[in-house]
Amino acid sequence: MPDILVVGSLAYDDVQTPFERRRDVLGGAASYFSVAASLYSRVHVVGVVGQDFDEADLGRLRARGIDTSGIERKPGRSFRWFGRYDYDMSTAETLNTDLGVFGEWRPVVPDALRDAPFVFLANIHPAIQLDVLRQVRTPTLVAMDSMNFWLEHDRDAVTEVMSRAHVVSINEGEARQFAQTFSVIRAARTILALGPTALVVKRGEHGAMLFLRDGGMFWTPAYPLEKVQDPTGAGDAFAGGFMGHLSVTGRCDADELRRAVIHGVVAGSFAVEAFSIAGLEAATPEAIEARYRALRGIVAVGADAVAEAGPLAGR
Amino acid sequence: MPDILVVGSLAYDDVQTPFERRRDVLGGAASYFSVAASLYSRVHVVGVVGQDFDEADLGRLRARGIDTSGIERKPGRSFRWFGRYDYDMSTAETLNTDLGVFGEWRPVVPDALRDAPFVFLANIHPAIQLDVLRQVRTPTLVAMDSMNFWLEHDRDAVTEVMSRAHVVSINEGEARQFAQTFSVIRAARTILALGPTALVVKRGEHGAMLFLRDGGMFWTPAYPLEKVQDPTGAGDAFAGGFMGHLSVTGRCDADELRRAVIHGVVAGSFAVEAFSIAGLEAATPEAIEARYRALRGIVAVGADAVAEAGPLAGR
Repeated sequence: MPDILVVGSLAYDDVQTPFERRRDVLGGAASYFSVAASLYSRVHVVGVVGQDFDEADLGRLRARGIDTSGIERKPGRSFRWFGRYDYDMSTAETLNTDLGVFGEWRPVVPDALRDAPFVFLANIHPAIQLDVLRQVRTPTLVAMDSMNFWLEHDRDAVTEVMSRAHVVSINEGEARQFAQTFSVIRAARTILALGPTALVVKRGEHGAMLFLRDGGMFWTPAYPLEKVQDPTGAGDAFAGGFMGHLSVTGRCDADELRRAVIHGVVAGSFAVEAFSIAGLEAATPEAIEARYRALRGIVAVGADAVAEAGPLAGR
Repeated sequence: MPDILVVGSLAYDDVQTPFERRRDVLGGAASYFSVAASLYSRVHVVGVVGQDFDEADLGRLRARGIDTSGIERKPGRSFRWFGRYDYDMSTAETLNTDLGVFGEWRPVVPDALRDAPFVFLANIHPAIQLDVLRQVRTPTLVAMDSMNFWLEHDRDAVTEVMSRAHVVSINEGEARQFAQTFSVIRAARTILALGPTALVVKRGEHGAMLFLRDGGMFWTPAYPLEKVQDPTGAGDAFAGGFMGHLSVTGRCDADELRRAVIHGVVAGSFAVEAFSIAGLEAATPEAIEARYRALRGIVAVGADAVAEAGPLAGR
């Protein structure tokens, strides 16, 4: 079971939906990612928290076997995000961001973690992502996320990260924005021309697409949920399921990448069923397997073989 | 090859996209539907046009083997629609509607057509749809479309049409509106409780979903297009491909309904590639087959069987 290294934010979120508001809940890309990926492999988090960060929240991660020794505690406040969702329960409107100790942070990857075969660069300043890439040694697979702010204000650095990653995982609007086109196909061509093997385009309730440099294309629906409580973290959970699956199989060929995308949307479906990481904490290998099979059944026609067991079967 | 009867509008459209404007192009639900379905079976149109309707446009339909003898010509102007699309090239904003002769029209289905096994009630006043249902005799399959205006202003009549149809085919926003819920799953439950065997939820660039009364669910992506010229008629073309496939197979079981949904999105993909019916006119059985296979390939993983031939193969 190869290890996974994630570098990203740990935060406290204030989340408002049309139906409910929750304050000071555990959030941050690294939290969502690591809990999702911990269902598959050993995960190591490199991040930073302030003096206000509750030790019990680190305990929630450790309870899942997640290695938190790479999380620094610094004087000051933890990263805080305040966001609101409209009735579409889709795109968040950021009402306030307080970077706190995250603002001046320069990650140092502990030497023991520099050989991690799977590396996820969560959405952080692209200069920090490049800094991490200089510290790790010959990873099997590097995946990166970003956000509209960096795509607009630090395009050159984002471009360099994309060119050095194996997998770029961003949402549809960001792909279009980066490539300056409405066509997601053209956007994929633009991004893949930078060098990555694969581009994952996250489409929220419409699932996810995978584009390969060799021209291959894959699409899976999102797992259909009757109720979504909080969309926050879906993209990071996606990355956790995606990397988790690849780490278990140890392969990154086209078929495993396709399966990984399905695992990604499954992880995302658990994330949005509850506030904070509670939905992911409630997920089990059996429940993941059941949703994976259900998703295959939803796209199946006639004699299509949809009975293949996922890598978590029987674990 | 069982026959298909469609009752709906023939119109002249004025369409504006961010990139281009076309005036007085042949449109109307029955036009798009019949051209798409004519790739599969013999189609009979019941509709009405005004004195301004160009005989050459009826000739375009007849050139495809479509029976236009059920189209009445009445004193007055033909139905005209003026719509605009924003950069998302998705939902149309109606700028003007002039019903013309369509406003007072009460369709009379010629006796020879009342035994048509496949009947499509395109988006028209639900009272007219009910009128048609009183005229046809024991059809194998009745599918119906509607629009937000009728869902809001004549809900009782729409409900009755839904309860008497085998297949309800509407877009996602309409399904949510009708069922007064954000959840498309709950909307499906509400609509299927009225009586239809199947609900098709059209999602534009995100494909289409099929919900069966027995709980089955299916979802296919839209055929990925690099360029969309005019989204008008995509939903009616969808219905044409959907009904066309079922009419060829003569079966309406769950697997054929799933395949029919794929044929629907394929027909829709041709419709949006050009203004008016030109995109559909350019489609061939071979091109349909190729897109059908491509769509199956896009959702396939590993050993999934995706090589099954569609019903148009070799025709």
